[in-house]
Amino acid sequence: MLRNDVEFKKSLQDGRRVFYEGAAVSDVTKHEILKIAINHASDLFKWQNQKQYSSLLVRPDNEYGNISAFYAVPKTTGDLKERFDVIYETTRLGRGMFNIVKAIGSDAMFALMIVSRIIDNEFKTNYSERINKFYRDTVQNDLALSVAQTDVKGNRVLRPSEQPDKDMYVRIVERRDDGIVVNGAKAHTTQSVASNMIIAIPTRNMTEADKDYAVAFAVPPNAKGVSLISRPMKASESAIKDPSLVIGNNNAENETLTIFDHVFIPWEHVFMAGEWKYAGLLASMFPTYHRFTAIAYRAAMGDLYLGLGKLIAEHNGTSETSNIRRNIVNLMTYKETLRLAGIGAAEYAEMDTQTGIYVPNRVYTNVGKLFANQNYLDSVKNLVDIAGGLASTLPHSSDLNNPEERELLLKYLSGAIVNKTEERIRLISTVREIISSYGALFTSAMLHAEGSIEASTIELYRSYDYSESKKLALFASGVVDKL
Amino acid sequence: MLRNDVEFKKSLQDGRRVFYEGAAVSDVTKHEILKIAINHASDLFKWQNQKQYSSLLVRPDNEYGNISAFYAVPKTTGDLKERFDVIYETTRLGRGMFNIVKAIGSDAMFALMIVSRIIDNEFKTNYSERINKFYRDTVQNDLALSVAQTDVKGNRVLRPSEQPDKDMYVRIVERRDDGIVVNGAKAHTTQSVASNMIIAIPTRNMTEADKDYAVAFAVPPNAKGVSLISRPMKASESAIKDPSLVIGNNNAENETLTIFDHVFIPWEHVFMAGEWKYAGLLASMFPTYHRFTAIAYRAAMGDLYLGLGKLIAEHNGTSETSNIRRNIVNLMTYKETLRLAGIGAAEYAEMDTQTGIYVPNRVYTNVGKLFANQNYLDSVKNLVDIAGGLASTLPHSSDLNNPEERELLLKYLSGAIVNKTEERIRLISTVREIISSYGALFTSAMLHAEGSIEASTIELYRSYDYSESKKLALFASGVVDKL
Amino acid sequence: MLRNDVEFKKSLQDGRRVFYEGAAVSDVTKHEILKIAINHASDLFKWQNQKQYSSLLVRPDNEYGNISAFYAVPKTTGDLKERFDVIYETTRLGRGMFNIVKAIGSDAMFALMIVSRIIDNEFKTNYSERINKFYRDTVQNDLALSVAQTDVKGNRVLRPSEQPDKDMYVRIVERRDDGIVVNGAKAHTTQSVASNMIIAIPTRNMTEADKDYAVAFAVPPNAKGVSLISRPMKASESAIKDPSLVIGNNNAENETLTIFDHVFIPWEHVFMAGEWKYAGLLASMFPTYHRFTAIAYRAAMGDLYLGLGKLIAEHNGTSETSNIRRNIVNLMTYKETLRLAGIGAAEYAEMDTQTGIYVPNRVYTNVGKLFANQNYLDSVKNLVDIAGGLASTLPHSSDLNNPEERELLLKYLSGAIVNKTEERIRLISTVREIISSYGALFTSAMLHAEGSIEASTIELYRSYDYSESKKLALFASGVVDKL
Amino acid sequence: MLRNDVEFKKSLQDGRRVFYEGAAVSDVTKHEILKIAINHASDLFKWQNQKQYSSLLVRPDNEYGNISAFYAVPKTTGDLKERFDVIYETTRLGRGMFNIVKAIGSDAMFALMIVSRIIDNEFKTNYSERINKFYRDTVQNDLALSVAQTDVKGNRVLRPSEQPDKDMYVRIVERRDDGIVVNGAKAHTTQSVASNMIIAIPTRNMTEADKDYAVAFAVPPNAKGVSLISRPMKASESAIKDPSLVIGNNNAENETLTIFDHVFIPWEHVFMAGEWKYAGLLASMFPTYHRFTAIAYRAAMGDLYLGLGKLIAEHNGTSETSNIRRNIVNLMTYKETLRLAGIGAAEYAEMDTQTGIYVPNRVYTNVGKLFANQNYLDSVKNLVDIAGGLASTLPHSSDLNNPEERELLLKYLSGAIVNKTEERIRLISTVREIISSYGALFTSAMLHAEGSIEASTIELYRSYDYSESKKLALFASGVVDKL
Repeated sequence: MLRNDVEFKKSLQDGRRVFYEGAAVSDVTKHEILKIAINHASDLFKWQNQKQYSSLLVRPDNEYGNISAFYAVPKTTGDLKERFDVIYETTRLGRGMFNIVKAIGSDAMFALMIVSRIIDNEFKTNYSERINKFYRDTVQNDLALSVAQTDVKGNRVLRPSEQPDKDMYVRIVERRDDGIVVNGAKAHTTQSVASNMIIAIPTRNMTEADKDYAVAFAVPPNAKGVSLISRPMKASESAIKDPSLVIGNNNAENETLTIFDHVFIPWEHVFMAGEWKYAGLLASMFPTYHRFTAIAYRAAMGDLYLGLGKLIAEHNGTSETSNIRRNIVNLMTYKETLRLAGIGAAEYAEMDTQTGIYVPNRVYTNVGKLFANQNYLDSVKNLVDIAGGLASTLPHSSDLNNPEERELLLKYLSGAIVNKTEERIRLISTVREIISSYGALFTSAMLHAEGSIEASTIELYRSYDYSESKKLALFASGVVDKL
Repeated sequence: MLRNDVEFKKSLQDGRRVFYEGAAVSDVTKHEILKIAINHASDLFKWQNQKQYSSLLVRPDNEYGNISAFYAVPKTTGDLKERFDVIYETTRLGRGMFNIVKAIGSDAMFALMIVSRIIDNEFKTNYSERINKFYRDTVQNDLALSVAQTDVKGNRVLRPSEQPDKDMYVRIVERRDDGIVVNGAKAHTTQSVASNMIIAIPTRNMTEADKDYAVAFAVPPNAKGVSLISRPMKASESAIKDPSLVIGNNNAENETLTIFDHVFIPWEHVFMAGEWKYAGLLASMFPTYHRFTAIAYRAAMGDLYLGLGKLIAEHNGTSETSNIRRNIVNLMTYKETLRLAGIGAAEYAEMDTQTGIYVPNRVYTNVGKLFANQNYLDSVKNLVDIAGGLASTLPHSSDLNNPEERELLLKYLSGAIVNKTEERIRLISTVREIISSYGALFTSAMLHAEGSIEASTIELYRSYDYSESKKLALFASGVVDKL
Repeated sequence: MLRNDVEFKKSLQDGRRVFYEGAAVSDVTKHEILKIAINHASDLFKWQNQKQYSSLLVRPDNEYGNISAFYAVPKTTGDLKERFDVIYETTRLGRGMFNIVKAIGSDAMFALMIVSRIIDNEFKTNYSERINKFYRDTVQNDLALSVAQTDVKGNRVLRPSEQPDKDMYVRIVERRDDGIVVNGAKAHTTQSVASNMIIAIPTRNMTEADKDYAVAFAVPPNAKGVSLISRPMKASESAIKDPSLVIGNNNAENETLTIFDHVFIPWEHVFMAGEWKYAGLLASMFPTYHRFTAIAYRAAMGDLYLGLGKLIAEHNGTSETSNIRRNIVNLMTYKETLRLAGIGAAEYAEMDTQTGIYVPNRVYTNVGKLFANQNYLDSVKNLVDIAGGLASTLPHSSDLNNPEERELLLKYLSGAIVNKTEERIRLISTVREIISSYGALFTSAMLHAEGSIEASTIELYRSYDYSESKKLALFASGVVDKL
Repeated sequence: MLRNDVEFKKSLQDGRRVFYEGAAVSDVTKHEILKIAINHASDLFKWQNQKQYSSLLVRPDNEYGNISAFYAVPKTTGDLKERFDVIYETTRLGRGMFNIVKAIGSDAMFALMIVSRIIDNEFKTNYSERINKFYRDTVQNDLALSVAQTDVKGNRVLRPSEQPDKDMYVRIVERRDDGIVVNGAKAHTTQSVASNMIIAIPTRNMTEADKDYAVAFAVPPNAKGVSLISRPMKASESAIKDPSLVIGNNNAENETLTIFDHVFIPWEHVFMAGEWKYAGLLASMFPTYHRFTAIAYRAAMGDLYLGLGKLIAEHNGTSETSNIRRNIVNLMTYKETLRLAGIGAAEYAEMDTQTGIYVPNRVYTNVGKLFANQNYLDSVKNLVDIAGGLASTLPHSSDLNNPEERELLLKYLSGAIVNKTEERIRLISTVREIISSYGALFTSAMLHAEGSIEASTIELYRSYDYSESKKLALFASGVVDKL
């Protein structure tokens, strides 16, 4: 059953404990700032009921009828390509802002489906059944999900069990007949405030000493003991005072510090509880899916930057200047390299033999992700190099509304294209939005979301099959005679 | 006569026409946001009257008694080194924020002193006398100055006289017995709102057809026909709601679009009026001084980033991690390369033979400036790579004040250093400030202020003396036998 | 009819006029150095007759029976993927050295098939028939081809017809009833000495004034007036004195300056003769195919560097060191990004509607090519950073044969892997070969072969469809309401 | 007593045991290839006796009369500046090739003078007296010195005493009344074949278990048990067949694997023997001097590349092309940043209080060194991007001598400058020499000589004084109130 935006919003009015800038938020759908993140999420529910987007966002399913395209389990390489497009296009519809509430949850569920089967095989557990049941509930009720993975970590060079404060990683503090009790906190939980369930999974591999930290579960945001402390959303705070900032006024996601204070989780929602050997596998299987998601939404962001760069260059009259051309080609390369990574990751996906689920090619996914991390700020540099100093010093949109100023501004901010000064102003203003109040989110997220540069490096280094390359090196060096 | 901060602020209450976010500002010293920029500028006047900074900020002068160190004309390489330190240290005192109101004006006056002499020699004009008189007034009255150089430019591939709208570059529209009348607009005028006089100079070389655009002058901000339209200062707008953001609450500079609508300039304040042959020389002499200033203040910014990076790494427990070490050394290299450029530019400065004024070495100045432009965002990347995702998702300072949240936050945001969680939070919060609301200013200014990458490239390319290098190439290639 | 290596070599003994280091070469197959390039080319003929490579190198064709896989005209995206593999695998079989003599000629023929049809449509010419006949001859006789595109150019900022010496670009100097006479010289003709026919095509777009330069043709290397002046092949010159250098002793390609001194070309081998409007199209259609070829062989080179890096790191005991890990992941990224570009360029190839021939996706091909150019030397840096100073200072292989030295060398050059010192030596020696005598070829070719950085930049800039990106930018900026 | 080149060469005919490409070398001054390295070294002795270079190369000394400028102990910052110039200018005189035989030895002696005093203070040893005596001998006899520091290291992650083969680092195997006996091997000993004494010092810090490896000494190359196994000098091997390659025919340095097989060292030449606590200090003090030397010679190499790039651009007609301009400015920046580092390292040198000897500023020296390492291959890329494909495919110089080819070559290799085709050819040929047979030396040495990127990174990271930067970060974050 595909919900609409009204139903979705209503489902969030459930007493969840949310704080924004030091104040408790009684209803996230009505909070001046948070509602922008909620509205952004609700767009996914609105669009899926609109005819022009149904082929993009809705998939027929034998069992459940029409389901959200995000929740279609990838059973072919083609399914992964379609998944890439769903994320790419919804990000474009969101004005370059990713819309996460169905993507990330499915990334986690696919990973859990695969890993739970492996755990069940070894430990005769029934996690697989549980996650499949959870998946069914999600699909049938068309839920929005968030995923909490990154623990707060305390001293980062100590393992979970070595921390002076044992709660620096989320852990099981009590095992009961009917479930477990967990304690701890996860950082950076995107759109927890806009989700119906939070899925928590481990953030790293574990040793036996860490086994209480090998825990995965789902929990509703309004569960007792769950607190969601929001980051300040500066972009939207600025935007509500500036109607020209259409991104910040309409498209934003929120992150919370998500605290679990002795939260009870019934067994049906527990997907790992002590099987420390597989914490690392789950901790890396989810990112494989989620980094595939990331290269799709980042390609769409790249599309925005490319469009801004090209249009502003035309407005400035510099679009045939050699150095500006290089800037634009760099923006193009950013976008298209990510698309290439998506194409390759889908085309060379590997099927998990037990479940038949396709996993994006790990090498291509991480090559793309690493490229995105490494080069994001270079894209910003190229974009701002094109836009010029006005990206900082442009007057405010309300200056255009003041009749004393308007004529002067239209005269002096005109560029090479006659009668399109307001378009030029809006485009440069969007660049400013990206590097200003959105800057913290973008700069930090492009480097850290879905795993840092070091994390992707290690993943690639360890998972790569070097055998062919080594054979060639030995052959070319005359150590062996044949390839 | 060295003024104090109170006198300085009072001098700005002169009826200047200023707009901020669409509203006219009646008194810049009292405007909720603009006053932060005014206060920042006033610090220079406060410090120079404090004993601990007098050796840094005050210089004895034979003619004028104690004068501001900024206004000491560089007559030795040592003077330039001291000038570097004055700018470096006042930027550090400004919490990493440059304090421009005496630096930029002296940069322009030194350039005008040199160029006016050359013009006078050729055209028998008396510009030299005028600028020296202006300098005396400035020093004796301890004025704050701003400089307006970058014209709005319209279509950037057309010369001034080729623009459809002739006012796209500031120009002389009337020559009268008592002075000239100018029209046009300059972008990005830093701290015009906090200055007693605005100096305007050409932004590029000119041809004979452009001769009305070869104009340099000084004008008080409250002159009839001058309008100052401010950029929105998002960093300070955020900061006034967050007492933890001490930079944005105390240290900010402002930029305006500075419009001249038939403004009359008496001859005594006109320093170039049609001598188009020397517009290019002035347009590049000022940046030589001002880029020297830039590498000094950017080195101080680099110092801040390095300190933040190192401290946060220690808080995170990652300071001995190989990849974090590289990040920190990159930050160090950014700062120290700029200091090296400053040392070399001073040490190898060239004396203008007619005036005895020292000009910072053009090659080293531009090498440093280009390095700063090219690598600023890489510094940001290194800093954010160290700081982690919290640089985006850290809760607001007011969350720490809410007793319901405080304990949880102190518990879960603790790092590797016991009992210093609040310090960790403040440091990461400062990183966020840098990349968030300050992001537009920093990103754009680091790429464009004092000239873009392309501008410094061309300057270096043209001014470099290749003769030694060519001789070596010919010798090493066997074309000539001797070096 | 697929030839074997003996037949191939024999076909080169045809009296072609070749110079090597100042001496005329009477028989290229017997020249001490040139024969290495000939042998390298002959491997393609040898392999195609060996069972284990037949599925890779031979394709059944309805008309001609078994043909070389290189000559299979791409009629589906799958054909292009197979073509990528053929080039990638033969490069690996060539110890990382590309084997060009069938690849480049087919790249040119495919381009000529498409462009000739367009010209014929407009000018009622019969070029299409001629190139198809030439293709048939090539396939049926299993010929080796070289392509001469880059003119010597004289003063590079002047167009062909503006050059003081009119022969700086190859041109038609006479039109006769039976054909044309051409003059001029082409630089960098790879493996002309090992080819049965040379195809010459224009290197740039032309204006009407340049119409004599709009010329494409095929000519046998032994035609009257053709001179082939070889570059010195330092890598092979070194290798013949060092049996451990198996690449240089077995796998090398040659380049010549190819001079046409009043060479007569019969009409059947003329594929363009004055149709200047289409010179640019041909000049860019061939590189599209050839850059696709390039990313395939460069991926294979990348595979070699990755294998060398990983094995040497293991020998040095540094394979788990954080900085070495980054080096290795950079090598991996180089290789795999090129593979991604190949996958995308094939998958999103476009069919030429008139001929049904598939053209590799121009954006992905150039994105890959540009990446390869921009990052090649960075790969070298990573490889040498791993290998250490021995990549320069390793003793010669003959030192190992001197009993006085052998034991000492085996003792002191041992690494972390016991009893594999000779393997370590050979691997590091291969790195040295790559950066030493092969350095000129690789460094220069990786930057310039198949088009420089600037060439690929301009191609991308001009051919890209910005419409989607612009729409997004306008939507995100609030200029339009819908995507 | 300043020797001349004849005396110098004669001093090398002393029966030293040298191997080149598997053959014993009876007299290094007469060996076809090695003599090029000897001649290169002998230039220093020749020049110092020529009037035009005496002010550069000779210094009056109170005690010893005229001494080599290289051996002047730096007692002021000015001395270090002069030292920079001596190295910079002699490298230029050597056609861009560093001339090491007096520089490196003095670098080591200065370091030993300082460290020996510290050791003597703690252990009441008399190393200080010994090194001063050694210094006197060196100066008075005007000796050439080489320095052997880098041990062969075996498994690089094991400490010296942990290696399976105990000789992987040079060590004391016997302590006798009259001296010590050492065993082991040092890699990359530059110009040992052209030196009168070899100084050996530790390559890293040591623990107590490693104390036999904490050894420093001097030894003549012809001492019993010393073997010098040369690397193959491909650049000179190529050059002797090509008279146009004036660098390789005249200017080359040699490296050996230097093996100590139970070599006896009398006490007077032992400068450290077990004082493991100070092995690390010596291992880092020498590189501080030697990296200062490095930035000087690399600046001179940069000067060569810049000259080549600019001249070739002019020959190609591309010197006003925007992308080529960027290439040239990058080359300029490489050279000038190194000069800046030299200026700063000298200007901010620190005096060792016990000896009065000046040590180049450690931060600026390493910042410069790291810059040189990180950006060398980027310089090559810029140079080759300018030079074009001919940097690979240019014919051999002997082709110009063949009358059949000469006219064609001069016609077709002409560029934008009339009548200077041979100059163009020679310049491009020099680029080829740099990236071809010299490629291994340059690529590897620029990354590894005087310490790798990782080594300089760690040195900087550890030696930097972060206190100012931290204070600023705390102040700007509001943690402290005052700077």
